[in-house]
Amino acid sequence: MKTLTITKDLGGQAAIAGSSKDYAGYQFITIDDLLSKYDYHLKNFGIDSKTGYEVKSIVKEGNIFSVNTNDSSFKTSSIIISTGRKPKDLGIPGEKEFFGKGVTYCATCDAPLFRNRDVAVIGGGNGALYATLSLMDYANKIHLLNLSNNLRGDSELIEKVSSSSKTKIINNVKIKEIIGDEIVTNLIITNEDKGDLNLAVNGIFIEIGSEPVSIPIKGVDNALKTNSKNEIVVNEECETNIPGVFAAGDVTNIPHKQVISACGFGAIAGLSAFNYIKKQPKTIII
Amino acid sequence: MKTLTITKDLGGQAAIAGSSKDYAGYQFITIDDLLSKYDYHLKNFGIDSKTGYEVKSIVKEGNIFSVNTNDSSFKTSSIIISTGRKPKDLGIPGEKEFFGKGVTYCATCDAPLFRNRDVAVIGGGNGALYATLSLMDYANKIHLLNLSNNLRGDSELIEKVSSSSKTKIINNVKIKEIIGDEIVTNLIITNEDKGDLNLAVNGIFIEIGSEPVSIPIKGVDNALKTNSKNEIVVNEECETNIPGVFAAGDVTNIPHKQVISACGFGAIAGLSAFNYIKKQPKTIII
Repeated sequence: MKTLTITKDLGGQAAIAGSSKDYAGYQFITIDDLLSKYDYHLKNFGIDSKTGYEVKSIVKEGNIFSVNTNDSSFKTSSIIISTGRKPKDLGIPGEKEFFGKGVTYCATCDAPLFRNRDVAVIGGGNGALYATLSLMDYANKIHLLNLSNNLRGDSELIEKVSSSSKTKIINNVKIKEIIGDEIVTNLIITNEDKGDLNLAVNGIFIEIGSEPVSIPIKGVDNALKTNSKNEIVVNEECETNIPGVFAAGDVTNIPHKQVISACGFGAIAGLSAFNYIKKQPKTIII
Repeated sequence: MKTLTITKDLGGQAAIAGSSKDYAGYQFITIDDLLSKYDYHLKNFGIDSKTGYEVKSIVKEGNIFSVNTNDSSFKTSSIIISTGRKPKDLGIPGEKEFFGKGVTYCATCDAPLFRNRDVAVIGGGNGALYATLSLMDYANKIHLLNLSNNLRGDSELIEKVSSSSKTKIINNVKIKEIIGDEIVTNLIITNEDKGDLNLAVNGIFIEIGSEPVSIPIKGVDNALKTNSKNEIVVNEECETNIPGVFAAGDVTNIPHKQVISACGFGAIAGLSAFNYIKKQPKTIII
């Protein structure tokens, strides 16, 4: 059985978290280390891996799927979609223009770039709290801008963030506009009590949650079934509603998103795809 | 949230396998090593662990469960059953009497005890093939007694076992009786072609599959729901039909039994139990 993995980049949500203390088998591991262990594991089994390839579409023709990236196409009898989730954006003016010029969705990656700068973190859950924690080692001042009434997330994190003299928390904020020239210089927000505020910041860390990464599938009788959160609906065998298409991990409707659970479903999807292919008439893919 | 793990012994099915090459994060690891990593992980989180305690029954009284072992009882608001599976027995004369006196269900544990002895392995799947492989390093002669027509299991294993001069494979066997004095001395089998055969062996390795390890639950309105294979039926949250009772791993109706999948469902069951307890009225357990 020949297997190919295709991905734009490795790590996904986990890479943003930076490290794990709840992956059974490792009491503590950085995600970089875990990823290099996965990579080594794949290579030792002779699995071909295409990193840097973004899948744009999947097209079904007869019993064969074409997986199309920017400039390549791969043919296969069966597919496991395990694209995970990506950060949500705010959809406000300036957000796209200044992405990579002060606007970021990855505190683990970018916090060190803002040494002695003033920054804003947008969000009120664990993502925003972790981002603030990372920034506390580097930034001068951190505006934690929470869109709702209260910080959600682990009490331990809330306590650490709240007790820092660097952090200023504002609740019930609406984010209006990002302003800058070559890089971000200001963020316009509004708040019922304080009205419009113009914050002088060079970094804006957007941490308002995530959504599944979808890939369009063409040439099929029925569209890929998803739930109200756009997550791919799978059964206990990790089968989707399209024969030959399986899904595993955070892109699916599993109730709790954990690295070890995603790995567990990956194993199930792999065995289910194996069983599916065994039952197909033998096809030669050129 | 206080957590207690109670188990007769660690490792279960995995310990019998001896090692793993498909646990994401470890390209190769012995199960002993993996178990000690789990144990270290638990201890680092301050989780109390009772090893050597066999759970005899669970009794529900109001919203509290009593988990009863031979001579202790533990009270809890919620339970995760992850008892796994145990080897099946043949149910023939001599099997119980000579257990531990030549009759064994664990080749990894006991193969080294049969150096230069003649032994029988009963079964025709991967379990029996692995047992035979382990014994090839120690035993003098190995009768592989297959209850059906053909060896099932990985072709790579079948080839290794078949090509050994130590191994004699007999198919379509019925196992009749185990005979001995202080230890096993003989095994009586029958076969259509050859009639009754009396094999002089000191070791009998029974490898005919496994079944879920069940625990009786009393004081509940409805019995714990299981499927036709006696596996506990769980939904995607790892909930059983009894509120507060969750299950994870090989004891459940998951379609593929893999260590990494069991770990993944363990994480889901843990988070589901957490959510369940959060919703309960606060109880003080004495």
